[in-house]
Amino acid sequence: MISAYSRLLALGKELQLVNDSAALLGWDQEVLLPSRGIAYRAEQMSWFSGYVHERFTAAEVGEWIAEAEAGLAADDPVAAANCREWRHEYDRSTCLPTKLVQDLAEARVHSQAAWAEARKASDFSRFAPHLQKLVDLSREHAERWGYEDQLYDALIDRFERGATARGLTATLGSLREALVPVVEAATSRPAFDRSGLQGHYPIEKQSAFNREVAEAIGFDFEAGRIDTAVHPFCSGMAPYDTRLTTRYDESDFLSSLFGVLHEAGHGLYEQGLPKEWRGQPAGNSVSLGVHESQSRLWENHVGRSRAFWERWLPRAVHYFPHLAGLTPADLYAAVNQAERSHIRVEADEVTYDLHILLRFEIECAIFSGELAIADIPGEWNRRFESYFGLPVKNDAEGCLQDIHWSMAIFGYFPTYSLGNLNAAHLATSARRLDPAVARAFETADYAPLLAWMRKQIHEAGSLHLPDDLITRAAGSPVTSDALVAHLRERYLGEG
Amino acid sequence: MISAYSRLLALGKELQLVNDSAALLGWDQEVLLPSRGIAYRAEQMSWFSGYVHERFTAAEVGEWIAEAEAGLAADDPVAAANCREWRHEYDRSTCLPTKLVQDLAEARVHSQAAWAEARKASDFSRFAPHLQKLVDLSREHAERWGYEDQLYDALIDRFERGATARGLTATLGSLREALVPVVEAATSRPAFDRSGLQGHYPIEKQSAFNREVAEAIGFDFEAGRIDTAVHPFCSGMAPYDTRLTTRYDESDFLSSLFGVLHEAGHGLYEQGLPKEWRGQPAGNSVSLGVHESQSRLWENHVGRSRAFWERWLPRAVHYFPHLAGLTPADLYAAVNQAERSHIRVEADEVTYDLHILLRFEIECAIFSGELAIADIPGEWNRRFESYFGLPVKNDAEGCLQDIHWSMAIFGYFPTYSLGNLNAAHLATSARRLDPAVARAFETADYAPLLAWMRKQIHEAGSLHLPDDLITRAAGSPVTSDALVAHLRERYLGEG
Repeated sequence: MISAYSRLLALGKELQLVNDSAALLGWDQEVLLPSRGIAYRAEQMSWFSGYVHERFTAAEVGEWIAEAEAGLAADDPVAAANCREWRHEYDRSTCLPTKLVQDLAEARVHSQAAWAEARKASDFSRFAPHLQKLVDLSREHAERWGYEDQLYDALIDRFERGATARGLTATLGSLREALVPVVEAATSRPAFDRSGLQGHYPIEKQSAFNREVAEAIGFDFEAGRIDTAVHPFCSGMAPYDTRLTTRYDESDFLSSLFGVLHEAGHGLYEQGLPKEWRGQPAGNSVSLGVHESQSRLWENHVGRSRAFWERWLPRAVHYFPHLAGLTPADLYAAVNQAERSHIRVEADEVTYDLHILLRFEIECAIFSGELAIADIPGEWNRRFESYFGLPVKNDAEGCLQDIHWSMAIFGYFPTYSLGNLNAAHLATSARRLDPAVARAFETADYAPLLAWMRKQIHEAGSLHLPDDLITRAAGSPVTSDALVAHLRERYLGEG
Repeated sequence: MISAYSRLLALGKELQLVNDSAALLGWDQEVLLPSRGIAYRAEQMSWFSGYVHERFTAAEVGEWIAEAEAGLAADDPVAAANCREWRHEYDRSTCLPTKLVQDLAEARVHSQAAWAEARKASDFSRFAPHLQKLVDLSREHAERWGYEDQLYDALIDRFERGATARGLTATLGSLREALVPVVEAATSRPAFDRSGLQGHYPIEKQSAFNREVAEAIGFDFEAGRIDTAVHPFCSGMAPYDTRLTTRYDESDFLSSLFGVLHEAGHGLYEQGLPKEWRGQPAGNSVSLGVHESQSRLWENHVGRSRAFWERWLPRAVHYFPHLAGLTPADLYAAVNQAERSHIRVEADEVTYDLHILLRFEIECAIFSGELAIADIPGEWNRRFESYFGLPVKNDAEGCLQDIHWSMAIFGYFPTYSLGNLNAAHLATSARRLDPAVARAFETADYAPLLAWMRKQIHEAGSLHLPDDLITRAAGSPVTSDALVAHLRERYLGEG
């Protein structure tokens, strides 16, 4: 007789294969799809999600999970992780009435269009009724999913298993206190003179340079690609098929380079996931906050370091000869400039988390009921001015700037800061725990760093919940200490 | 109550959507897939074909088809075509035992590898046992599918509904008789001096020129793309997503240009299929012989004409200034050179069909039992020398040159010649029937030609069987007359 656990493994493998096919369609939509093909592609995507949902939420699957849980051996951590995640996903999928899911899907379509118009007109009031509806429907989802402490926790959990508003408030609150003086000092430094960077950077040269860097840090081009897309992203769409995208600005090679370093960080994680568990929950990346730790590691801790530019400036000069007069120190200064600004996606490393904190606090206040939708712009502007010392002139540069709320992905923002915190904590710990990693950061030969992340993070898949995974890898739970120390070193020249 | 016919329409729409998704995966495999991704992609492709097969061959589908047939209204040609094709496909799919299908699939995998090795070693004997197995299994398929006259007919029918060995023997036989003196005369003409064409043709310039030409003949780039692949092909993977591929030789712009004209001909057919019938058999392209008529039309009748080069040489000079000394007559001569050669895929328009005829006659002899597998090389070489006047030095340039037999797609070759015959018959008839089309061929403004094909061929989908479709469009059944007259004009300057 085939065991329930085996049936779940077989189903998981099949649905993974189907999801991976949908991932290619999704990737293609962003990168290649002819403009008139979008409506049909949407029908295809909808078929895939419907098919997978229907198969996974069948009654027999619930029976198999119960049976697998009952038969779980004490010494099988993979099966334990699988059962934990199957149960979690099954319960969360089956407790929602179809009508609620459809209502939210429909509301999202309308609210995204409304958000785009409202942002264009810089008028939050046009978006407000849509946001109200998304918040109400999300609240209903959260009530059904359940939570121990606060309703908002059930929303965060989708992106970061085990994270809570209370825990994040403590971590991000202490980060804020430590950051404020760093931001103050960093933004008071004289600006770096960028005139030496001015020039023409042909796309094909940027592409060749980026590829060389990505290959050097370990991205496997026999199991991956880099293509061009408006929105840079990474898609790990098969065990040996991880695709990054970037975009090019022919007056600034650093923009595509850091885009590639960031996405290649995600890509290294995807390429390092345990292939023998693909299709099992244990084989998945564990959370957005851990995923973002890998992208931020390579983008910021590696790519914005002195050692990186000592190694790579000569290659940059090879591709872009007009850079010949610059020194590694110039590049180091150029890529570590702090500036107070309104737009999150343009923010530097030191001010970035203040942008996130603002959003997190507002989401907390919305879902605790303390903040009415209509009051969001006022609250945003007040907090922004207090954190950044800049007035917000309009909603477009304020609370309407991000797409996230129009997609109802509440609880997503804090994972960006978790990524920054985890990246610093892991980089610092890895250096401390492994002398080869410490040397890697000095010599800019990062193979030992990748090997450490492979072993500690990538190959663990989803065996452990995110907090546990980070604690096991780093030897201690994440705090804001490592990130603050890192930023003080970068921006204030300390340490 | 939902009618059986409506159920079939819904099922067809869903399976089309799934097949279209598989088509993107297949396209991606040829164009983009990282090398290590191939094994998993094969698993995905197999899942898709298994899923569609299982859904379509369910017992209830057979009942729906019977019910739809019984309820068919006399004045509904679309429903009639749908029922005709559903019945045909259902019966052919369900009459095969699973084991036979699996045996052939497995034998194909092995025989393709064996063929590649045999060709490399130029030793037919290594491929012979595999070919024997494929022929035996194909024979068993044909017996189960059934036929009226010859077993081989059941194999041809997969690619060309309604075509028979007897009919093709008559058509291709008369073509051969007419061709022999044309080949003789054409290959005796002095060769065109190609030195004026020598030079460097950068890929991006070729790509821009090809795109301009493809757009001018009507290919819709908002509903399609051109990419690069080792094997040029066209995939109509969604109502508004038709993709062509080509390959580039930087010493010869004509190679990629004619590749694009050929594939764009396929693409125009795909883009012109009736979108409101997508997912219904009536909405499909009708056969390979009709598909190939569209590619050959634009490649040969348009692209190799004098008028085409009068219009396009100035644009070619714009992209490739070293062509400035050439005249349209030079290009016309350059693209209409005949030469006796061993390799089909390199053959010119006038000798091409002799290559096909040879393969068709050998396939006929294999499946009639007249020719043993072991005797294929001898028979091939004897016939080749009689048609081309050239000895065959080895199997690699002889009976091992094509991949088709190793894939067990017997009955495929004759559709290439049908394409040539249909293209000439349609081009000649359209010119005769519609003065605007006749002018189009003189002015190289081909909008009326595309409009005629849209109306007569593309928009008919699979309403009519191929022979019927061509006869309705051209006003008479296809014969070899138009093709022979066309080749005499091109190669002997007649008419």
